[in-house]
Amino acid sequence: MGVMPAVLVGTNVKGKPNFMTAAWSTVACMAPPMVCVAINHARQTAKGIGENGTFSLNIASTKQVTETDYCGIVTGSHEDKSKVFSTFYGKLKTAPMASECPVNIECKVYKSVDCGSHELYIGEISEVYMSKDYTKDGSPDLSKIDPIVYSAGSYWQLGKPVAKAFSEGKKYKKK
Amino acid sequence: MGVMPAVLVGTNVKGKPNFMTAAWSTVACMAPPMVCVAINHARQTAKGIGENGTFSLNIASTKQVTETDYCGIVTGSHEDKSKVFSTFYGKLKTAPMASECPVNIECKVYKSVDCGSHELYIGEISEVYMSKDYTKDGSPDLSKIDPIVYSAGSYWQLGKPVAKAFSEGKKYKKK
Repeated sequence: MGVMPAVLVGTNVKGKPNFMTAAWSTVACMAPPMVCVAINHARQTAKGIGENGTFSLNIASTKQVTETDYCGIVTGSHEDKSKVFSTFYGKLKTAPMASECPVNIECKVYKSVDCGSHELYIGEISEVYMSKDYTKDGSPDLSKIDPIVYSAGSYWQLGKPVAKAFSEGKKYKKK
Repeated sequence: MGVMPAVLVGTNVKGKPNFMTAAWSTVACMAPPMVCVAINHARQTAKGIGENGTFSLNIASTKQVTETDYCGIVTGSHEDKSKVFSTFYGKLKTAPMASECPVNIECKVYKSVDCGSHELYIGEISEVYMSKDYTKDGSPDLSKIDPIVYSAGSYWQLGKPVAKAFSEGKKYKKK
């Protein structure tokens, strides 16, 4: 898919926080706000979502690139990943979120679709949390967030802006 | 969601190619390979998918940034977008693809989920096409593809690599 966001999927597995790195997530709906994420059935994360019907998506900054990759390499069935991040809980009580990440999205499963190797979980957003460390005058500051882009087996920074959306297209002239 | 890929969703609407810009798409499954994309119910693209049960995702390069944004601003119900790109069809016959885009993913709807304002279409990949202009020695060349990253209302280039995936995490030391 070219470029993808690097996110950490937070779940409670047997009552303990667990985080798994995922590149396969996006927005599923605007109203009500929903996201979706594809998870291999064998993962602890799938078990955690099954237990509680909740999960979180935590958008990682390049500051967390080592921890982010670690959570993609190591399985929660062999290693305790509950201490990789400082975790907090929101109103759903069972979706752990990583304090260090700039943005945390707390979700309740709306529906899930068995696609084969992966289950596509569609989650209704319960709340979005943003750390003050990553804002400027109360708004998200992209240069502070410095989100990780995943592409072709590597993590990348955002580069130069190419054009403004909902504006650049006005230059298009029919041939 | 921080960063997202800019893709063009290709559909046949009343037998004519139509392209809509979407930021809300990702991989839904590895085996069999599937993708998903969220589309507002009011869009011509939703009508096209309803007509044929097929669609394409076309990954845009920064070379196509003006056309890409144009297809996000203008609706197919008012403007004929069939000539914005040179189109070709694959084995599904009804999913138009944009020749100018580096990567074209031809899809057949597996399932779709009504999420509210948006329908989440999950498509099984029928074929992936890659233009030779964007490869080097037969492999995709990311510097040639130069994919568009959408974030915070702008289109961006990929920046510097931060770390290798499935490698960087080995540096993580438990505290």
